[in-house]
Amino acid sequence: MAPLTPRLVVPIDINKKPWEQEVPLHNRWHPMIPPVAEVKTGEIFRIEMVDWTGGAIKDDNAAVDVKDLDLSTVHYLSGPVRVLDVDGNPAKPGDLLAVEICNLGPLPGDEWGFTAIFDRENGGGFLTDHFPCATKAIWYFEGIYAYSPHIPGVRFPGLTHPGIVGTAPSMELLNIWNEREREVEETGLQSLKLCEVLHSRPLANLPSTKGCFLGKIEEGTPEWERIAREAARTIPGRENGGNCDIKNLGRGSKVYLPVFVDGANLSTGDMHFSQGDGEVAFCGAIEMSGFLELKCEIIRDGMKEYLTPMGPTPLHVNPIFEIGPVEPRFSEWLVFEGISVDESGRQHFLDASVAYKRAVLNAIDYLSRFGYTKEQVYLLLSCCPCEGRISGIVDSPNALATLAIPTSIFDLDIRPKINKVPKGPRLVRNPNIPQCSYDGKLPTTKNPSATT
Amino acid sequence: MAPLTPRLVVPIDINKKPWEQEVPLHNRWHPMIPPVAEVKTGEIFRIEMVDWTGGAIKDDNAAVDVKDLDLSTVHYLSGPVRVLDVDGNPAKPGDLLAVEICNLGPLPGDEWGFTAIFDRENGGGFLTDHFPCATKAIWYFEGIYAYSPHIPGVRFPGLTHPGIVGTAPSMELLNIWNEREREVEETGLQSLKLCEVLHSRPLANLPSTKGCFLGKIEEGTPEWERIAREAARTIPGRENGGNCDIKNLGRGSKVYLPVFVDGANLSTGDMHFSQGDGEVAFCGAIEMSGFLELKCEIIRDGMKEYLTPMGPTPLHVNPIFEIGPVEPRFSEWLVFEGISVDESGRQHFLDASVAYKRAVLNAIDYLSRFGYTKEQVYLLLSCCPCEGRISGIVDSPNALATLAIPTSIFDLDIRPKINKVPKGPRLVRNPNIPQCSYDGKLPTTKNPSATT
Amino acid sequence: MAPLTPRLVVPIDINKKPWEQEVPLHNRWHPMIPPVAEVKTGEIFRIEMVDWTGGAIKDDNAAVDVKDLDLSTVHYLSGPVRVLDVDGNPAKPGDLLAVEICNLGPLPGDEWGFTAIFDRENGGGFLTDHFPCATKAIWYFEGIYAYSPHIPGVRFPGLTHPGIVGTAPSMELLNIWNEREREVEETGLQSLKLCEVLHSRPLANLPSTKGCFLGKIEEGTPEWERIAREAARTIPGRENGGNCDIKNLGRGSKVYLPVFVDGANLSTGDMHFSQGDGEVAFCGAIEMSGFLELKCEIIRDGMKEYLTPMGPTPLHVNPIFEIGPVEPRFSEWLVFEGISVDESGRQHFLDASVAYKRAVLNAIDYLSRFGYTKEQVYLLLSCCPCEGRISGIVDSPNALATLAIPTSIFDLDIRPKINKVPKGPRLVRNPNIPQCSYDGKLPTTKNPSATT
Amino acid sequence: MAPLTPRLVVPIDINKKPWEQEVPLHNRWHPMIPPVAEVKTGEIFRIEMVDWTGGAIKDDNAAVDVKDLDLSTVHYLSGPVRVLDVDGNPAKPGDLLAVEICNLGPLPGDEWGFTAIFDRENGGGFLTDHFPCATKAIWYFEGIYAYSPHIPGVRFPGLTHPGIVGTAPSMELLNIWNEREREVEETGLQSLKLCEVLHSRPLANLPSTKGCFLGKIEEGTPEWERIAREAARTIPGRENGGNCDIKNLGRGSKVYLPVFVDGANLSTGDMHFSQGDGEVAFCGAIEMSGFLELKCEIIRDGMKEYLTPMGPTPLHVNPIFEIGPVEPRFSEWLVFEGISVDESGRQHFLDASVAYKRAVLNAIDYLSRFGYTKEQVYLLLSCCPCEGRISGIVDSPNALATLAIPTSIFDLDIRPKINKVPKGPRLVRNPNIPQCSYDGKLPTTKNPSATT
Repeated sequence: MAPLTPRLVVPIDINKKPWEQEVPLHNRWHPMIPPVAEVKTGEIFRIEMVDWTGGAIKDDNAAVDVKDLDLSTVHYLSGPVRVLDVDGNPAKPGDLLAVEICNLGPLPGDEWGFTAIFDRENGGGFLTDHFPCATKAIWYFEGIYAYSPHIPGVRFPGLTHPGIVGTAPSMELLNIWNEREREVEETGLQSLKLCEVLHSRPLANLPSTKGCFLGKIEEGTPEWERIAREAARTIPGRENGGNCDIKNLGRGSKVYLPVFVDGANLSTGDMHFSQGDGEVAFCGAIEMSGFLELKCEIIRDGMKEYLTPMGPTPLHVNPIFEIGPVEPRFSEWLVFEGISVDESGRQHFLDASVAYKRAVLNAIDYLSRFGYTKEQVYLLLSCCPCEGRISGIVDSPNALATLAIPTSIFDLDIRPKINKVPKGPRLVRNPNIPQCSYDGKLPTTKNPSATT
Repeated sequence: MAPLTPRLVVPIDINKKPWEQEVPLHNRWHPMIPPVAEVKTGEIFRIEMVDWTGGAIKDDNAAVDVKDLDLSTVHYLSGPVRVLDVDGNPAKPGDLLAVEICNLGPLPGDEWGFTAIFDRENGGGFLTDHFPCATKAIWYFEGIYAYSPHIPGVRFPGLTHPGIVGTAPSMELLNIWNEREREVEETGLQSLKLCEVLHSRPLANLPSTKGCFLGKIEEGTPEWERIAREAARTIPGRENGGNCDIKNLGRGSKVYLPVFVDGANLSTGDMHFSQGDGEVAFCGAIEMSGFLELKCEIIRDGMKEYLTPMGPTPLHVNPIFEIGPVEPRFSEWLVFEGISVDESGRQHFLDASVAYKRAVLNAIDYLSRFGYTKEQVYLLLSCCPCEGRISGIVDSPNALATLAIPTSIFDLDIRPKINKVPKGPRLVRNPNIPQCSYDGKLPTTKNPSATT
Repeated sequence: MAPLTPRLVVPIDINKKPWEQEVPLHNRWHPMIPPVAEVKTGEIFRIEMVDWTGGAIKDDNAAVDVKDLDLSTVHYLSGPVRVLDVDGNPAKPGDLLAVEICNLGPLPGDEWGFTAIFDRENGGGFLTDHFPCATKAIWYFEGIYAYSPHIPGVRFPGLTHPGIVGTAPSMELLNIWNEREREVEETGLQSLKLCEVLHSRPLANLPSTKGCFLGKIEEGTPEWERIAREAARTIPGRENGGNCDIKNLGRGSKVYLPVFVDGANLSTGDMHFSQGDGEVAFCGAIEMSGFLELKCEIIRDGMKEYLTPMGPTPLHVNPIFEIGPVEPRFSEWLVFEGISVDESGRQHFLDASVAYKRAVLNAIDYLSRFGYTKEQVYLLLSCCPCEGRISGIVDSPNALATLAIPTSIFDLDIRPKINKVPKGPRLVRNPNIPQCSYDGKLPTTKNPSATT
Repeated sequence: MAPLTPRLVVPIDINKKPWEQEVPLHNRWHPMIPPVAEVKTGEIFRIEMVDWTGGAIKDDNAAVDVKDLDLSTVHYLSGPVRVLDVDGNPAKPGDLLAVEICNLGPLPGDEWGFTAIFDRENGGGFLTDHFPCATKAIWYFEGIYAYSPHIPGVRFPGLTHPGIVGTAPSMELLNIWNEREREVEETGLQSLKLCEVLHSRPLANLPSTKGCFLGKIEEGTPEWERIAREAARTIPGRENGGNCDIKNLGRGSKVYLPVFVDGANLSTGDMHFSQGDGEVAFCGAIEMSGFLELKCEIIRDGMKEYLTPMGPTPLHVNPIFEIGPVEPRFSEWLVFEGISVDESGRQHFLDASVAYKRAVLNAIDYLSRFGYTKEQVYLLLSCCPCEGRISGIVDSPNALATLAIPTSIFDLDIRPKINKVPKGPRLVRNPNIPQCSYDGKLPTTKNPSATT
């Protein structure tokens, strides 16, 4: 009759480095990374996790840690966790793993987070051509709320969620990933229009032994060498879920993940206190360490039943999920539109990415009039609970994207006023946000019509 | 003290053809299209409108009207309406026109609508390479609810909104439009990746005298000829608002439109009983005739104050808006993910359009197992109140889009079940949806993994 | 295939008196009032209605019409409507009538309403001992929104609903009503505590021939005389639904009404543009004329299956309903608590009415500091979309009620401020609300601690 | 720059008895109960608390602990906490204490709760005349969700909140309480109508030395004796907040409490995982131990500015609060109406308590047809997130109350069905809910029309 406290299967000591944790972490996807724990269906278990950088970003007033971050080591993941049914039989390839996020939050004693713009030559972000300088904002939590000493005048409840929940790929799937991403890396600049717009962002993040951690597999062994050379980086979301960065995967949601290997080998990490749709600044959520309380069910043969392969193989699937019932509630939204015409005035064809870029740029300019620097707004829109929608995708040649911002996160009314048009900055805010210079030589996009 | 019923400034007689209406309609954007009415700020006025095709689509069981539709005549717009302040001074270029949508709905006596897939050689749609056949679904209204004899088992409240609200462009802006769209038409196939994916959709819709209606300007006159040759088509949303097809521009919302010509010259049309984000089938909302009750305010010099030019000229702006308070409320959502890998398995770079395409394809396949044809689901997802979100736009190389479907619109529980996996179609539904054959020769995209 | 516009079964001409309407109205409940129309299940039909007073209250700046209102004539109802199934068989006693409110609104051309405090000797209201003077506020509509020249600084979307939807009682049920209400009228002052608190409100409204309208039954005939003497007044909600004044019976809701007579004989009236829980001022909603579009279904033998008789007979039931999906959405609420201790400091026992009275009084005083008279706030809380909740009903001796007010209906932030405590009225508002003197001699409750 | 983890000011060891805790608890209101901790405004601090019975109710399958519970010892409160401003000056009488509930939850390692019906001679509840037997349901938590082995087929997210948050009364206020409650105890049976309805519930809970705990004041000392004789019981909510049992005082809410003594002396307890409006079963929430993370601000002289005294003294005030942004979201509600006619058919006058009683009885009967015992439903409606509203309070003689139940908490569709009327129990559920016999002699209310 005794109720069960969630069993802690991956503990984290925030005073230790990622590679010193009692249960070893990993930062690659590979079928051979051994499970660190076993759970049964129906059981509530707890996984703790470091922030995605493993503590590399500090709670201070300088952005040099952001500028110098070694991206080869991200994301540090907790797991893999092997899932068995109540009879002890593991999840099998072809099953569907239903993962309910029963609860989550920051790690006790570590209630803070950060949002950052990466330097253009070290990761960049959605607007890296506009904002090439490494910049950082620290956030503190007051229970469900976050506020930042670097972005005054805003406070909001977090739609807290893990950026990454995924199952291990099979070798076959891993090979598919590596092949298609290598192709884009090699040929993308010739064939992919968006490169122009985003300039020098990395086209793909291919396997690299540098910075690689493989959990229980000891670094330097032949096994490690072999796996490290082929293990997929964790940056993009893929068929296994992974770094989906979906802000709606919060408390009470349930995600249905395909199973590609025996036991499913579930890994998770990259906890976000809050994130806006798109996570535009890249290190763009309120990044933190945290914990998850999960419950798994196995739907035998569920992949075939519920997930549609859409591509050359039955492995070309995507997860589905149900949204939880306790997302923060907002009623009033100010919405910015963007069409697929870029900053130079060039027409793109039904390109929702370009349209969204424009909507975000529009919002940044608008909000910067309330006393913020544009970098402050870029960071804010990246991490506050704003909604990015593909509103129109058929009206050739313009895709139309919208960015909806809940007005109640601000301490003043940001809506346009009919009668009194404010002139100049509405408020003098603190512009002292930690920022580095950009020392590279890539060109910056200037808005031709900008007055400042 | 007497309260005012909204003044009817554009009446529609649904028994007449679009070109027979008492107040003439227009279907192009041009600064010289003369206003048909004047309103004052603060006044509530009523505009009636035909459906976007002007009655070309019939309430019957055949799709031939869809297949043969003359797209050169759309969209029939009501207006332009010239807006004056209380002192009689017109809105001026540089002002912002705040348009509140006080109320709206179907035209009394015409409570029905349609959703259609266009033939691939006549307009197409977001998934035209998968669904090349002209197809149609009729919808009937029961007050706030819509249901279709062609898509059984669903019923939902409409988030009713006008697809088009816009101000007249200045000549300068019109020239910008025509130039950039001509360029994409001429060079797009070489430079724009998405064309491959969407195959043969029209790249742009350039000015054409065919099918052109210019309101009070008589057809055949030299003035008509000149304007018709340069007047912009209404298909894409642009700087003036226009065909934004934003489902959230519903009751109680307020849109802030830039003013480019004296009097603002507000036009509206393309009423939608309901639409999903993206309006994926192109003729994809529940299209209907309808009425709007509007109230305008003028924010003098508001463009400079509130809209950010983002491009070569101060005219490169986009509208902003506030969402109204009475959108239908849903609590439970089933969400489909899509990444920017296309059906052939090819990796695209942070392409939200490709990612959304995949999310929609995934949802179509999933729902088709509940006894629907895929065309039925394609139509449904195009017009029901589903949410299309850009969830991740920075995790190279994958953009991640999500499509969230409110589960309560179905008469059965469509969520995955843990314990009993259904095999085969869950229900035998009526598949007799009006559909034509596709007689063209363009290749169709086949999902390589599809079993049916 | 032609879709059907809702069939108009009860038309209203707002330029005519209630007794001059083409289809006669009625203002009593009685099984013998003959149906004025027949409808079939599944059919959408439209009923129009006068405001509950039948036009007695004018759109002007005086409250004398409120003071002098003849309450014997209210409420003017449209109907009864006889309901048949698709085979032509009428609803039968014991059935359940499911009535879906597909749509509703003000009558076109009559878009205004009123809220009033009745004179203490002519109806009174929940706080009549505090506010004995007849007072009136006029409201104008801008589509979904209402605003009042008499209560400046507020504007809100309406949760529009009919105050009255009900079926005809059987003779047996009618006799039960008349008996129990006569008893309370005769013995209530001795036995019912709340009388003290509310002083002189009418204890019951017993049948009276004065002001009686019985639809098609001609006044003065013996039949009329007989029925008028026994027909129940429409003031209280009862087993048949009736004047429930439930603000949530809005668009898209569905109410399940018991059937007591052949054909069900559905009547409706008392349209409210908006109302707060409790409708505290009595004439307390935004009262207006209006229309309903309804759809009925018959659940055969549904009373026994779905409604629980709770009392001496199987007729002692209450309706149930489902809330519709388009209620206005609010996120931020300021909530006032009240416990069951009255203004004299006397302790009552778990009395939710006393607790709610106190919560309302607290809210009135609070809001009056923002430049309003208390009468203005009393009217506002009666008609705006506020929520009245029974929060605690077991913690002897205190019931605890709460009144939650959506803060966004005000044009300024009404929440308490931490740092700057305002002194005195925050705003000078227009206090010129139409009001009469109170000429009676009943004592007024004075708040002993009031400073003004 | 280091962010602060909430400082733990009242720790709880769940393995110890309430009177063995390191920081002593108290279970009375009195100005002389000494503070156990000091906090500063703006600081986030953590208070832990035992469940309201201090562990008397066990996680087992018998209800004898409920039947025998010693109610003289409840509620065990944590605190008082003395609040100072940043300069170290305490809150003063006349100030307002703004308490933000930043976070809350069950105590780690103790994730379960209980809901109980008390025996009619030991506390009773809102429906004690119908349900006199001690009954118990245990609830287990899966993160945000609760489920019960004793009430199968339901699972819901909790709107977790503290039942009690209050400040210490001054002696003057305490005397007012004791006097008015003594009067109701002594004269209530003669003058208070609801007594008949609720039969033998205690009219008041007057001070008693039995079971009294006074924090740091040692039992048996003269000081203890004196205070224990006059300290108020914690059962009813009062001017100081206290046991308000408002389900909406959840995460992110902010309550404004009057300050009556130096330092405010804030106490809290009675954590509820979830509760329905009214908490009808009395021990009716999902009762548990828990923690609160709070932040206080002092509004100097705020009582006069923001709280209205309504009664003989300036102390006759009630708290106000703002609702937080993360309440569970529900869209579909089935609503039960009740009017103020009691089970014997007797008419009451505008009595919202009687009306709500009837609405709850109606709902219990309805839901019992889905395979539940009525006791199971009574418990469920007491603790699930249902809404109890005072819908109409002016339509003499009937008050009308509604009880709205979110349909998604059930694993089957509980709404009435048009086409297929179910006969008999819809499901055979487990009726083995822990229950004792009722051994008293008070009469039970029988519903005269009940068939079972």
